[in-house]
Amino acid sequence: MPLYDLPLDELVSYRPDVAEPDDFDAFWRETIESARAHDTPVHRTPVDTPLALVDVFDVTFPGFDGHPVKAWLTVPRGRSGPLPAVVHYNGYGGGRGLPHQRLLWAAAGYAYLFMDTRGQGGTWGDGGQTPDPVGTGPSHPGVMTQGITDPHDHYYRRMFTDAVRAVDAVRTFPEVDAARVAVTGGSQGGGTALAVAGLVPDLWAVMADVPFLCHIRRAVGLVDSSPYHEITKFLSVNRHLEETAFRTLSYIDAVNHARRAAAPLLASVALRDPICPPSTVYAAYNHYGRPGSLGASDRTMEVYPHNEHEGGGGFQEARQLEWLAGLAARE
Amino acid sequence: MPLYDLPLDELVSYRPDVAEPDDFDAFWRETIESARAHDTPVHRTPVDTPLALVDVFDVTFPGFDGHPVKAWLTVPRGRSGPLPAVVHYNGYGGGRGLPHQRLLWAAAGYAYLFMDTRGQGGTWGDGGQTPDPVGTGPSHPGVMTQGITDPHDHYYRRMFTDAVRAVDAVRTFPEVDAARVAVTGGSQGGGTALAVAGLVPDLWAVMADVPFLCHIRRAVGLVDSSPYHEITKFLSVNRHLEETAFRTLSYIDAVNHARRAAAPLLASVALRDPICPPSTVYAAYNHYGRPGSLGASDRTMEVYPHNEHEGGGGFQEARQLEWLAGLAARE
Amino acid sequence: MPLYDLPLDELVSYRPDVAEPDDFDAFWRETIESARAHDTPVHRTPVDTPLALVDVFDVTFPGFDGHPVKAWLTVPRGRSGPLPAVVHYNGYGGGRGLPHQRLLWAAAGYAYLFMDTRGQGGTWGDGGQTPDPVGTGPSHPGVMTQGITDPHDHYYRRMFTDAVRAVDAVRTFPEVDAARVAVTGGSQGGGTALAVAGLVPDLWAVMADVPFLCHIRRAVGLVDSSPYHEITKFLSVNRHLEETAFRTLSYIDAVNHARRAAAPLLASVALRDPICPPSTVYAAYNHYGRPGSLGASDRTMEVYPHNEHEGGGGFQEARQLEWLAGLAARE
Amino acid sequence: MPLYDLPLDELVSYRPDVAEPDDFDAFWRETIESARAHDTPVHRTPVDTPLALVDVFDVTFPGFDGHPVKAWLTVPRGRSGPLPAVVHYNGYGGGRGLPHQRLLWAAAGYAYLFMDTRGQGGTWGDGGQTPDPVGTGPSHPGVMTQGITDPHDHYYRRMFTDAVRAVDAVRTFPEVDAARVAVTGGSQGGGTALAVAGLVPDLWAVMADVPFLCHIRRAVGLVDSSPYHEITKFLSVNRHLEETAFRTLSYIDAVNHARRAAAPLLASVALRDPICPPSTVYAAYNHYGRPGSLGASDRTMEVYPHNEHEGGGGFQEARQLEWLAGLAARE
Amino acid sequence: MPLYDLPLDELVSYRPDVAEPDDFDAFWRETIESARAHDTPVHRTPVDTPLALVDVFDVTFPGFDGHPVKAWLTVPRGRSGPLPAVVHYNGYGGGRGLPHQRLLWAAAGYAYLFMDTRGQGGTWGDGGQTPDPVGTGPSHPGVMTQGITDPHDHYYRRMFTDAVRAVDAVRTFPEVDAARVAVTGGSQGGGTALAVAGLVPDLWAVMADVPFLCHIRRAVGLVDSSPYHEITKFLSVNRHLEETAFRTLSYIDAVNHARRAAAPLLASVALRDPICPPSTVYAAYNHYGRPGSLGASDRTMEVYPHNEHEGGGGFQEARQLEWLAGLAARE
Amino acid sequence: MPLYDLPLDELVSYRPDVAEPDDFDAFWRETIESARAHDTPVHRTPVDTPLALVDVFDVTFPGFDGHPVKAWLTVPRGRSGPLPAVVHYNGYGGGRGLPHQRLLWAAAGYAYLFMDTRGQGGTWGDGGQTPDPVGTGPSHPGVMTQGITDPHDHYYRRMFTDAVRAVDAVRTFPEVDAARVAVTGGSQGGGTALAVAGLVPDLWAVMADVPFLCHIRRAVGLVDSSPYHEITKFLSVNRHLEETAFRTLSYIDAVNHARRAAAPLLASVALRDPICPPSTVYAAYNHYGRPGSLGASDRTMEVYPHNEHEGGGGFQEARQLEWLAGLAARE
Repeated sequence: MPLYDLPLDELVSYRPDVAEPDDFDAFWRETIESARAHDTPVHRTPVDTPLALVDVFDVTFPGFDGHPVKAWLTVPRGRSGPLPAVVHYNGYGGGRGLPHQRLLWAAAGYAYLFMDTRGQGGTWGDGGQTPDPVGTGPSHPGVMTQGITDPHDHYYRRMFTDAVRAVDAVRTFPEVDAARVAVTGGSQGGGTALAVAGLVPDLWAVMADVPFLCHIRRAVGLVDSSPYHEITKFLSVNRHLEETAFRTLSYIDAVNHARRAAAPLLASVALRDPICPPSTVYAAYNHYGRPGSLGASDRTMEVYPHNEHEGGGGFQEARQLEWLAGLAARE
Repeated sequence: MPLYDLPLDELVSYRPDVAEPDDFDAFWRETIESARAHDTPVHRTPVDTPLALVDVFDVTFPGFDGHPVKAWLTVPRGRSGPLPAVVHYNGYGGGRGLPHQRLLWAAAGYAYLFMDTRGQGGTWGDGGQTPDPVGTGPSHPGVMTQGITDPHDHYYRRMFTDAVRAVDAVRTFPEVDAARVAVTGGSQGGGTALAVAGLVPDLWAVMADVPFLCHIRRAVGLVDSSPYHEITKFLSVNRHLEETAFRTLSYIDAVNHARRAAAPLLASVALRDPICPPSTVYAAYNHYGRPGSLGASDRTMEVYPHNEHEGGGGFQEARQLEWLAGLAARE
Repeated sequence: MPLYDLPLDELVSYRPDVAEPDDFDAFWRETIESARAHDTPVHRTPVDTPLALVDVFDVTFPGFDGHPVKAWLTVPRGRSGPLPAVVHYNGYGGGRGLPHQRLLWAAAGYAYLFMDTRGQGGTWGDGGQTPDPVGTGPSHPGVMTQGITDPHDHYYRRMFTDAVRAVDAVRTFPEVDAARVAVTGGSQGGGTALAVAGLVPDLWAVMADVPFLCHIRRAVGLVDSSPYHEITKFLSVNRHLEETAFRTLSYIDAVNHARRAAAPLLASVALRDPICPPSTVYAAYNHYGRPGSLGASDRTMEVYPHNEHEGGGGFQEARQLEWLAGLAARE
Repeated sequence: MPLYDLPLDELVSYRPDVAEPDDFDAFWRETIESARAHDTPVHRTPVDTPLALVDVFDVTFPGFDGHPVKAWLTVPRGRSGPLPAVVHYNGYGGGRGLPHQRLLWAAAGYAYLFMDTRGQGGTWGDGGQTPDPVGTGPSHPGVMTQGITDPHDHYYRRMFTDAVRAVDAVRTFPEVDAARVAVTGGSQGGGTALAVAGLVPDLWAVMADVPFLCHIRRAVGLVDSSPYHEITKFLSVNRHLEETAFRTLSYIDAVNHARRAAAPLLASVALRDPICPPSTVYAAYNHYGRPGSLGASDRTMEVYPHNEHEGGGGFQEARQLEWLAGLAARE
Repeated sequence: MPLYDLPLDELVSYRPDVAEPDDFDAFWRETIESARAHDTPVHRTPVDTPLALVDVFDVTFPGFDGHPVKAWLTVPRGRSGPLPAVVHYNGYGGGRGLPHQRLLWAAAGYAYLFMDTRGQGGTWGDGGQTPDPVGTGPSHPGVMTQGITDPHDHYYRRMFTDAVRAVDAVRTFPEVDAARVAVTGGSQGGGTALAVAGLVPDLWAVMADVPFLCHIRRAVGLVDSSPYHEITKFLSVNRHLEETAFRTLSYIDAVNHARRAAAPLLASVALRDPICPPSTVYAAYNHYGRPGSLGASDRTMEVYPHNEHEGGGGFQEARQLEWLAGLAARE
Repeated sequence: MPLYDLPLDELVSYRPDVAEPDDFDAFWRETIESARAHDTPVHRTPVDTPLALVDVFDVTFPGFDGHPVKAWLTVPRGRSGPLPAVVHYNGYGGGRGLPHQRLLWAAAGYAYLFMDTRGQGGTWGDGGQTPDPVGTGPSHPGVMTQGITDPHDHYYRRMFTDAVRAVDAVRTFPEVDAARVAVTGGSQGGGTALAVAGLVPDLWAVMADVPFLCHIRRAVGLVDSSPYHEITKFLSVNRHLEETAFRTLSYIDAVNHARRAAAPLLASVALRDPICPPSTVYAAYNHYGRPGSLGASDRTMEVYPHNEHEGGGGFQEARQLEWLAGLAARE
């Protein structure tokens, strides 16, 4: 993919108007409170793996509407003291996979929760186990347009709520230092991390890579790749639903969540990303942070000029390990 | 697409073993009876269109679990006497569209019901209005793997039940001669017509073009195009679910429904069809008909040697008009 | 296809200079007069179809140089009084197909003539029956460069003349109110409708969807899709013929025809159209109308922001039915 | 392209039945005689080029129906004695290009005539100057289906006749030894060379590379690439014309011409050729030669196992130079 | 990718003749001995990573001709006793990446060496640091045809030798139980593991996933995907080098190495693999094992019917962890 | 390919800043001097071809580091007096092919040397015979990133030196007028011709078509086609090497060489070129010429508005023949 979006010198200050509904805060307050009203306990069961250095637990926690959501909790074996925790959200189409996978954060000494994504897990990777018990109106294959005619019905209302509840869940674990919970993810997981950053006021840190779901209306015009393509295709058929759809999506848009965040952010962007256009990533990044909440060094962007959606890969992992260690050292 | 399946001289007698579960009949009997137990009435409302020659009604009938399913009923204006009826099921991803469309069968003097497809209508055409209120376990985008781990949960259990109930609904209309209800459709609609042919014992006629959902396990090995591709992709991730998935799909497979059919059939096949491989169409065709139910001329196949999934197009429409008129004349 | 042309706020006022040859009017006057000099009568034969609500006639009328051109005339059965008529031109590569097709306008109470396109009908749909007896110099496959070195020899000189003569033909039918003849079409058919709008001074109405053949020289630079691609490819080989070719095409360009039109226009444009770039559609739209000929409400554009070349589909059909009914009601 | 046709050990003896119409010989006899009845003289004009070693002439000779056909004649400057001649037919879509091109055969001491192909020259290369003044019924873009409903109207009836007349023309030149005229070409040019081999009884030699137009009906089923694709597409629309079309094409099929040939043949085949399937090349090769006409060493095939349609490239040119020199040396 | 190779029931017993040069053993004996003659010591340096549970070392060992080859050694922190070791070879185009990656085997209690691949590391992943100081004759981009005219010059002579020397190197580490060294890899890494299995007589275990470089001559005919495509393309140009090239490649072919192996094997195959055709994987598998060397249960194949080149993914990792633990438990 | 770069009216004056290292001249002086220090003689052997009008010699001359480089020398048979010479560099991936090919310049009366390209010749055409004995660090397949971390190691340092030495070699031939040596080539050959124009002060003329390797850093952002893609891909993996890589490439960049040229230039550009973006061609063209070195008419650009990378084809050959004849006539 050649460079196709704004040049980098314009991107760094790109801070567009993004539509936000008046009742955005009320909508989400009510949504999260209503989910928290379900007092189903969090379950965890040790998994028998051939791994010698870590313990893995099969976690079930109550998500949106109390629906059971699965996760893997991976912690250093023989750990001591409350550990900082990393909650990880997955990319589009993947599930939580198998318990022996994704060892990085536990190997680095963190408690690590990898959340399964409801209804997803049939497209790549090694599968998931979390159903989405809610149906949908007419939609395009994929979750982008499930419930698109009403923000209360949209898929990401449920999924973002699960993501908030995953933070709630991890804070209940004895190994975890509840004051030091970071969220992270790439693509859909990055957009989700930004949403949780806005919805959970007291996070420790946020790491969002090549985030999806930012400035959605612009993204839909810039690229026609999956999954934004689902919206375009749906609206190419349901030609009368354009305003309805984008109104619903404004409740989801990570730019609007990012405006409300307060935790330090490490983001990354790939300038040839054909899935998540760089200007939409910068739109969220440049709006990130509730006024007065962030210090000068609390927002960092890593730029990968030659990468597509794979972004920084292992380089960004190394950067995250270092950045989070730096945060820990600050305290 | 070049020719890629069996040569025509082998296709005409291709009648493979297709797995059928022992409780196939019980499963479907219970499913249909349970749907019919909902006594929600059928609603119809005249639609104000600029059309002068036909009347169009917006129909809502109770489908699976009594869920409301939409349809357009189009009848000749100033019609007289009970008319033969054609119930039409749509292809994958489409909705019922707009009321002024699909005028052929009414123009030919039939009562015509075009059923909306639950949850679909976001991919091509002009949209649908029928939700699918039931969720799903982890799945690949699209409906093929929704509920794939249990036949009770699979999408097509619900959709085929809707299709049966559409026949029930059309028979309640005063314009319709309940003894002369034909079902038709292409691709997904063709597979659905074959399923209804097996599930409704007293249909008048069946017209199935380039039917999808026939000999699914073979189809999945022969082509990797959408939508069969959804199954392959899901199983490429959920590598442990192969037998589970194909067991579920055996309840859906139109070959198993076709074996139970009794109404005359006009089918069509395209020899370069990259979506619905010709051998899977012949598998259903050569199994079609409950033993003893069909006369020698009651099963007809039109072969389109140079066509892909568009099949016979207007040529096949003309053939259907002539064939159904011939059936009417027989009586 | 992402958005790739000018943004909508620039499109609505995009009115570029488009080259027009000095003898444009003389060229076409002579062409049409010479075609009308052939006094071959229009033939029509009733077609035996299974349709109950309409009558279909197989029409042969004299086109360019008196060449026989085929069409289907479809009228409401039992019609009364002279009816308004719709003349429909087809998209690139299609033929008139079969007589039972395209029932919409007759079902809405209009006399409907669907013109076959000379030499076309071998690419999609159900075929045509009108030869083009004129050969060509070296050309690229397709009609775009047939006769491209001289406007007298170009394919569209003949085809546009056929289209004008189709209006002449429909006006001879007893069912038709000669004062109320509308022309319509999409893509090639839309460009043809605009050309006829400029060549026939007393049309009742013009409906042109995603029209092809507008501001051709710009289009050739913006897209490399078929059929504009034929011109690019031809000129990539015949590198010395650029000015010759574009001079020939300036006689065809629907922008130049649109400037001469006087009948009310309903147009449509799709903002992601990879075949007919939106700015070229607006070029024709913003030039449409002989000075002083149109009232304020006589030019209407429907914009489809998420569609490619399929444009408005059934939504636009519904809009046309309503718009034309509005015109009828005005009188 | 992987290997996709028969394995080589089956190809070498692949000699299928290929349909031949009863009046094949009469049809072509009458066609050629009728073309020769035009007594228009051959014209040649020296071309002013910067080339020092060869002379180039712009040739116009009468082809089918006496239509003027262009060619370049290139001969060694300061040549002496009557030279053997090579007549070259071009591949699909190309024209004769520019006079300074294609120097090989003249540099090797032959008189070389490169024939322009009527109506072609708009797709690749540097253009052509020979019109095809004959029109066509409904067809797919390209020449394959021009006149496909009647062998008298088919494009290749005219083009093959031009090719025969090119041999007639070259024999009139004083530099040429009329007894030593070879024909050659690749792809369309190879099919044409085989046709001329059957139509001109006293050729000196035939060199046909990766020939097109052999066992056309089989080819259409094996590949869907351009140009065979034109036939498939046309028949996918005009579903009723299958037998008509293949009957017409049986007059063109180079297998039927090859059966009537008598001159030594050097052919080549590429086993991964996605345009001209190897089995269709072998079909012509294994049928080549009127019974009793050829000695044991008079038919040679070069096999290129890893090539696609580019075939043997310069290797085959070197082989041809050597093979033809061998023929010359025999005498 | 649909199923395209032999059906599974034929694959399981597919054991084709594969050409082997007479001096195969001598060639490799001399090659390995000559490499071992370089007495450059193995270097290792601890790497400062943020990982708490493992230690990582930057290893440099002498490979072919004593060239320095890089690797990461990852071992459980606070390990005790000599550990079984896993040596891992990478897929085509990748490098060893960064030290914090690939934690699985160390987390499971093994010493783990991940070898960098000479000259590779510029196509995917996070890069490499091992040059290949040897040049090449004319070749196609990629390593497949580097040195293809002589087995002594071929790239894989050097790379396989590096792989053998990696086993030598790991055996020198104090943490490692030299009697329990397993080799593993996928694709190129799988082919390399099979080669090492034949070249190192006393391995503990071999795990080869979707191995590349097996029955190369067949593979080249079955698929035209990268990297086998490099061979096809090279031979399509260098048409005279076919036998030379395949002779060279017979020294590389993993089938010939597999015949000489003696260690237990766990292999995997994906039936839709467009890179490494399943029949070529079975060719190596069914030839695997020096006569008399393996017990009945010492050769295991995991079949992934719906996967492409990603093969078993995490499922196969889990299978390997279990299988290798089983081997350890045997002792 | 649509037009995608700057519009033509901006291109003609596009003269961007292009980074140039301070030691550019020293680097190349030392490189060329060091190559010339090898006093290996030039070898030439007559080749036995069937060509009657030219003589072909197999040439081996010392290139970079004295490495033997192959070429074909083709001269008019029976030539007299010292001839002007044309040295031709090939496009990416090709080799010198076979001796009977590329006859144009000799046929026009020039001595013609066609240089083989080290290590290339495995991708298209008819092969090469010149090895590149130098290895590389980790690289992407292809030569673009071979040695990319140090300008001394980069492939094009070697290849450009070969190209300079080819001029040296041709000047040693008795047939050649050393004062009239022109260099030419297309794509990679065009970039090489520009480099030689800067490195050899006393050339007679330079002809560069659609040159590659101009303003490389811009090109990499504008297109992602092969071969520029190799750089992008390499840097997408080796994310820390961006500045290192572009510093190395600045020694190669033909813009920097063009600034130093003094011979008259005939260039060509194709406005739809997806390989060598037009603005990068103009960047070199508008920088071409050491200050004060060129007269007003000494720099000419041919623009091909509808062409992709094939550029002007035979039209440009004709233009070159005429332009070079014009230069000859000047003297």
